[in-house]
Amino acid sequence: MAKDIKHEIERANSEAARRMVAADPVLVDIAPAGEVIPGFKDKMVLHSGPPVDWQHMCGAQKGAVIGMLLFEGWAKSKDQAIKILEDGAITFEPNHHHQAVGPMAGTITPSMWVFVIENKTFGNRAFCRQVEGRQQFGDYSQEALQDLIRWRDIWAPALRAGLRQVGGLSLKPIIARALQMGDELHNRPNAASSLFANAMAVPMMKAGVPKEALISTVDYLAGHELFFLGLSMASAKATADAARRIEYSTVVTAMARNGTEFGIQVSGLEDEWFTAPAPPVEGLFLPGYGKQDAGLDMGDSAINETVGWGGFALGGAPGILSLVGGTPEEALSYSREMQQITVTTSPEFRIPALGFEGTAIGIDVRKVVQTNILPVIDTALAHKDPGHPIIGAGLVRPPLECFRKALLRFAEKYGLT
Amino acid sequence: MAKDIKHEIERANSEAARRMVAADPVLVDIAPAGEVIPGFKDKMVLHSGPPVDWQHMCGAQKGAVIGMLLFEGWAKSKDQAIKILEDGAITFEPNHHHQAVGPMAGTITPSMWVFVIENKTFGNRAFCRQVEGRQQFGDYSQEALQDLIRWRDIWAPALRAGLRQVGGLSLKPIIARALQMGDELHNRPNAASSLFANAMAVPMMKAGVPKEALISTVDYLAGHELFFLGLSMASAKATADAARRIEYSTVVTAMARNGTEFGIQVSGLEDEWFTAPAPPVEGLFLPGYGKQDAGLDMGDSAINETVGWGGFALGGAPGILSLVGGTPEEALSYSREMQQITVTTSPEFRIPALGFEGTAIGIDVRKVVQTNILPVIDTALAHKDPGHPIIGAGLVRPPLECFRKALLRFAEKYGLT
Repeated sequence: MAKDIKHEIERANSEAARRMVAADPVLVDIAPAGEVIPGFKDKMVLHSGPPVDWQHMCGAQKGAVIGMLLFEGWAKSKDQAIKILEDGAITFEPNHHHQAVGPMAGTITPSMWVFVIENKTFGNRAFCRQVEGRQQFGDYSQEALQDLIRWRDIWAPALRAGLRQVGGLSLKPIIARALQMGDELHNRPNAASSLFANAMAVPMMKAGVPKEALISTVDYLAGHELFFLGLSMASAKATADAARRIEYSTVVTAMARNGTEFGIQVSGLEDEWFTAPAPPVEGLFLPGYGKQDAGLDMGDSAINETVGWGGFALGGAPGILSLVGGTPEEALSYSREMQQITVTTSPEFRIPALGFEGTAIGIDVRKVVQTNILPVIDTALAHKDPGHPIIGAGLVRPPLECFRKALLRFAEKYGLT
Repeated sequence: MAKDIKHEIERANSEAARRMVAADPVLVDIAPAGEVIPGFKDKMVLHSGPPVDWQHMCGAQKGAVIGMLLFEGWAKSKDQAIKILEDGAITFEPNHHHQAVGPMAGTITPSMWVFVIENKTFGNRAFCRQVEGRQQFGDYSQEALQDLIRWRDIWAPALRAGLRQVGGLSLKPIIARALQMGDELHNRPNAASSLFANAMAVPMMKAGVPKEALISTVDYLAGHELFFLGLSMASAKATADAARRIEYSTVVTAMARNGTEFGIQVSGLEDEWFTAPAPPVEGLFLPGYGKQDAGLDMGDSAINETVGWGGFALGGAPGILSLVGGTPEEALSYSREMQQITVTTSPEFRIPALGFEGTAIGIDVRKVVQTNILPVIDTALAHKDPGHPIIGAGLVRPPLECFRKALLRFAEKYGLT
């Protein structure tokens, strides 16, 4: 590699990391996806991970899509939904092609209300749907859809009224505090969820949300420990997108999985996906489920690791170990290990258990391939078949192949040997 | 020591620890102290620590007492308050003589609303006043008293209405969760405060608290990271009191300081105080203050360490180190060290950073004297003179003399050599 090109790469990666550090995610609205996500077309379902069609979708994502067709009223029954899907009447596109992300199956349709995050430093917007433990895991039962309906009809509108009352909510202070309260903001966003619930209660009261809806929404927020995951994902997407399309940069701007394939995108390589088969997840199962039930790695939530949260911040979140297994020492070592494959550390997001060191930011494809250290990702477990809620949680590492492919394309594009 | 007496002590200490573990603190009311604290007399001021009179009070406690006389309307000015106090017209008694505790100066007068905690397992009640950063540190300015007035007139009554709506709030689940969210519940009760605010919002709404008071109270709770300290102290008092007066037990049931003396009480030695001069605090100062300004160790808050929180749980709360100094490794070693001077560990209050080990419970006076390991106590710093707000925070260890004196009395009472 010529010396001046190496210098170009370093400069570009510094710029990518600088943009991630400078990002300022603010929750500016909560709105129906069809009204705010660019490029939504009729009968379109957005999904997690790199592109995939109905035939190649994993069981959980298929189940989640069936759920969305029922939720939208595009089908009246599971069988009718499957017929519509097999007829090719539904268009699928990745969330990431629409400035969006979604947890697990990640399914977003026009009537689904999404968080609207504006990165105030760079002006870009990102979107994410809310987190729940059933439909997004592939459960399309009436019971599973009830929470989607209440979100659409009660909770999301109440939050929107509160947000409009205060003119938006800056999430960086909540994220910084939560990282000092045992959160890694992916499998464990508990503190951030609690802080968010408190931050929104007064605005919703001031906005005059009717008493019944107010009580229902505050109750929902106060009881939903994973609520903030949707907000951290949207914040991470708004953060990572600011670092896209920097020529010469080898920094990863997205890691996403659809349960069939794991894909990454790289700043200096436009928006191309570099994919490999989705890996299995190492984790702990909820009662009644075991390894034989598990689907493969799925979800856009690895956007959190892309900006240094989740598995990268595991050392500060040992409370999560009851969910994913392991020891506090291992958790600390994961966080230190991630510093070896990243460009910088955050001056604002600091981990007390690591002596207030900052979170590791900006995964460098070169460092991953050179060291063979793969990003550590916290994740949940979905069933391999449609129709089930969450079955467990664990840790996963992406396939090295994604990073090798990206580096090969990089060499090709920039004329390196 | 005769073998059978040693056996008696072990049995008694196991019982003391069992009672602390079995305690079930429930917030049943918030009410004016004069209505609920037993034995309140006219013109009485309860204070932190062992007994002390006006002449021997430290500067900060004197300032806090002046503040309470102004708050109660017993004096119209600082000078009039001092005259009343020097004339001996005010009766002083320790909070601990009235089933109560108070942070820092710990001053409680009849109009001050206090938390009422009932230990549902044993039926005993305990009381604590709310936490703020000015009056209880000795600041008697009008500004300092404003928060006491708002507490009395708006916030406490609103919370009381919410509590009555739900019939009490069990605090054990909040405490257990907070210990997994980076809290040690003394200098850092941030997560517990946030969870408590979450828990009380809906009950206050359902109770029909008027909108203005509701907004003011939710806003106060959401912004007051130290709020839960008053609740953890009352819970700790209700927990420790259940272990009092067990014959032959060498377990500590109270550690308390008035800024002049440090005192401890021991289960098998009735309610006698074993005192020594209050030690200085090692810590970090707020801007504008330094060592030359610091008063000596003060407050009933060491009741938290008495039941295994605070300094005993420091390993799980490294976020506190920005406030008190030290490294995460030191914090972990403090928590492990405390296991050497205690009877048992909690099966319910577990610290993720310590591999989910339980908090150390039941300080054994014998072990302290034998090992020369003194309890680690998180604390705040008050000024040596009256009239100042909080000036810093740090760590302190009690004088060994308190434990030696207690052990001597124990030998005397139980006829040991």
